[in-house]
Amino acid sequence: MDHTLLDPAGTEPRPPRAAATPAHLAAVLAATREFLGERLTENRAVREQHGRGEDTTTPTLPDAVAFAESTGEVSRLLALCHAHGVPVTAFGAGTSLEGHVNPVRGGISLDLSRMNRILEVNQEDMDCLIEPGVTRHQLNDHLRDQGLFFPVDPGSHCTIGGMCATRASGTNAVRYGTIRENVLGLEVVLADGRVINTGGRVRKAANGYDLTHLMIGSEGTLGIVTKVRLRLHGIPEATSAAVCQFPTLRAAVETVITTMQSGIPVARIELLDEVQVAACIRYSKLEGLAELPTLFFEFHGSENGVAEQARAVEAIALEAGGNGFAWATDAETRNRLWTARHNAYWAAIASQPNSRGVTTDVCVPISRLAEALLGAKAEIEASGLSAPMVGHVGDGNFHTVILVDQDDPDALERAWALDRKIVARGLAVGGTCSGEHGIGLGKREFLEQEHGPEALAVMRSLKAALDPKGILNPGKMFRN
Amino acid sequence: MDHTLLDPAGTEPRPPRAAATPAHLAAVLAATREFLGERLTENRAVREQHGRGEDTTTPTLPDAVAFAESTGEVSRLLALCHAHGVPVTAFGAGTSLEGHVNPVRGGISLDLSRMNRILEVNQEDMDCLIEPGVTRHQLNDHLRDQGLFFPVDPGSHCTIGGMCATRASGTNAVRYGTIRENVLGLEVVLADGRVINTGGRVRKAANGYDLTHLMIGSEGTLGIVTKVRLRLHGIPEATSAAVCQFPTLRAAVETVITTMQSGIPVARIELLDEVQVAACIRYSKLEGLAELPTLFFEFHGSENGVAEQARAVEAIALEAGGNGFAWATDAETRNRLWTARHNAYWAAIASQPNSRGVTTDVCVPISRLAEALLGAKAEIEASGLSAPMVGHVGDGNFHTVILVDQDDPDALERAWALDRKIVARGLAVGGTCSGEHGIGLGKREFLEQEHGPEALAVMRSLKAALDPKGILNPGKMFRN
Repeated sequence: MDHTLLDPAGTEPRPPRAAATPAHLAAVLAATREFLGERLTENRAVREQHGRGEDTTTPTLPDAVAFAESTGEVSRLLALCHAHGVPVTAFGAGTSLEGHVNPVRGGISLDLSRMNRILEVNQEDMDCLIEPGVTRHQLNDHLRDQGLFFPVDPGSHCTIGGMCATRASGTNAVRYGTIRENVLGLEVVLADGRVINTGGRVRKAANGYDLTHLMIGSEGTLGIVTKVRLRLHGIPEATSAAVCQFPTLRAAVETVITTMQSGIPVARIELLDEVQVAACIRYSKLEGLAELPTLFFEFHGSENGVAEQARAVEAIALEAGGNGFAWATDAETRNRLWTARHNAYWAAIASQPNSRGVTTDVCVPISRLAEALLGAKAEIEASGLSAPMVGHVGDGNFHTVILVDQDDPDALERAWALDRKIVARGLAVGGTCSGEHGIGLGKREFLEQEHGPEALAVMRSLKAALDPKGILNPGKMFRN
Repeated sequence: MDHTLLDPAGTEPRPPRAAATPAHLAAVLAATREFLGERLTENRAVREQHGRGEDTTTPTLPDAVAFAESTGEVSRLLALCHAHGVPVTAFGAGTSLEGHVNPVRGGISLDLSRMNRILEVNQEDMDCLIEPGVTRHQLNDHLRDQGLFFPVDPGSHCTIGGMCATRASGTNAVRYGTIRENVLGLEVVLADGRVINTGGRVRKAANGYDLTHLMIGSEGTLGIVTKVRLRLHGIPEATSAAVCQFPTLRAAVETVITTMQSGIPVARIELLDEVQVAACIRYSKLEGLAELPTLFFEFHGSENGVAEQARAVEAIALEAGGNGFAWATDAETRNRLWTARHNAYWAAIASQPNSRGVTTDVCVPISRLAEALLGAKAEIEASGLSAPMVGHVGDGNFHTVILVDQDDPDALERAWALDRKIVARGLAVGGTCSGEHGIGLGKREFLEQEHGPEALAVMRSLKAALDPKGILNPGKMFRN
């Protein structure tokens, strides 16, 4: 066994560190330029654009940025980087919130955004094959005429490759599942340039180790996704949306819990606290809402089914003290509502000048949601920081966007301290530090707390098996 | 790197082989007897009971059978076997159809059927924590009073640990997913005795590598599952069932395809060909059915929703040429129907004297179902063998039970030849060799065809990382 894989105690394999010398880097750049030409660049402005995502980490400049346009190019680049020990950090739309795309050990930022072709749509099997740089907006625009949609919808204009990397979800996950349930198969380039296909076109299979799910959520540390086969869904016959405001956050949360426990198949059930509602009213010009805790609902199904679901939820909401149940049946009103919801992060950021956001992403069992969410609210109030709350509460998942002045390092420290308290409360009730944003740099300290040293050692041994030189997104997920 | 992990060409890690000497085996047995006492046995009758599952492989006697009653016992046993290089093959209810429980390299058969406690049921979060020896019948009997059920239902009285190992599904998968979608987390004992917890109680998480899904479907080759946290579902408000018979197999298959493509959320849609129907009529005393291709349906939802779904499917079936749509609204008729469906395998076996079954398990994209299924039927007819067909056709999955006289080795060869033809047709249309039964011994030759050498090499490297001595169910999944 290679002893560089052992920790100081000599007992557990650790993810190795890539260590590129200037000579190795130069060799990779020279060889890569031969097939990428000007799509390999050391231009400083481009490198700065690839220094971090939408997060609060300190940007790192990659040594170069490579814009790949095919699986073959990704494979050749990785084989070179593997041979020379040069780090490779994949980059899609740069919307990560946990530092995933920050190339902390330099090397190549591998930009996949130009691999954005929709290769197949199979209407009769409701699946499609796409390249990783396709965004969810691009895909849904393409699908609309065929009566199909792809339901996984993080708030950002992210790429689907990035969504696979972070095991993303969004507002529809309560009904349609996350990206984990909506990927049928992947094409992945391994660290050494080999190309594998995982999964397939079938809806279920008992045919060997589940490499698809091993790759989903591995944050670019085990391989680079170069094609994605997605499961699609039929646009429902009927859709309706509703908004209900509540006198207290507790009343809103109790409505969520009762709705979920009643087994009503809501398509979306989203919570905004009064701070977030105020930010959305200003940012998205939402009319007719008071600055109160609010739930947004959406129902999918047949005309009768939608009406039946909505009436059941209305009764629960009113029983919990909701201030009426405002219907949004026309598509325009619905779209304005959900666009406002998707822009909640930007509304939060805009609500305080010169801000960036430290985002918490706790997810808990639904029975513990009130405790976790109201506990988080109490921690925010005690901290004196501004932190709007918003959540995919049907899944037990909620976010706080802790606003920090970009020029105040103390504010960032205080934000991280608050983040730790909120996460600790989530973990204490059987939750996770990340429902959908991933680990990256920002949540590494929680990973071992959550899984324990033995499971973490298994993750490290998988990393060592698939990326023995540690070139893929080094420094992420694991602290050392 | 340990060179025993390299293949002859020296390029790919291969799953190593356990090689227990008599002295090592004796050492393990002596040390295990200290904590298992009489629950470790070398009794020949018990060993014979653990020689194979419900398959056609040649039984192998394990050197001993260990009946574990706790995670601690499994951990101590595996640590010993790891230290001494003694193979361990897990055994649940012995219902595997692909030779998974056949201890082909001897060693210990680890019987987990006594670890059958239901440890927690959380009604409000709709989850439970169980030991691996709990059967699905036992769990559903326990849950019924709480308004909950566990939907994954292979035909056999299998254990849930075994279902995790083989990535099982069943008749409800078309609506509720397979075991893959219904496990929230696992406790797993690794090859060297370390115990890990994967997943958790939350419905979604982006918190590191997905070890839960790596273990599900790994067939006891990566670890031994000692606890399972399952997702449960509310018993639907209304349920109704129906039966429709068709003049041709094609008409039945076309009804399935149109139903699925219409997005109707059927809970179950099962096909039996005329040979299987005849077998079920005799075995389960089903009345009122002709010996014709038949679909069984079940609908779950609200009273209105169920009626709406059923009417939509009825129209599709009649349009395709179905001979009427017989309703089974009372629970007793429904239960008789589904019990007959679950006993289809036994009905097939009973339809020919002195038989065992070689079972195919092809699963294809729904658009290719007619081609794959009718092609399989043509192969059966050309072979002259008897092979009733039955299928979870909503998922594109169907089985043929190729009947072989137990005392006729030539019949077994002919059955395997037919199996290969049916699988080849499935693979040719983008399908898999196994929708739900797993690879075991019986489908190993197809694994590389299906995934290609690179993906198979990745699977092998994961095996080598987690079970470096190759003690866990050696000889399964991989051919060498």
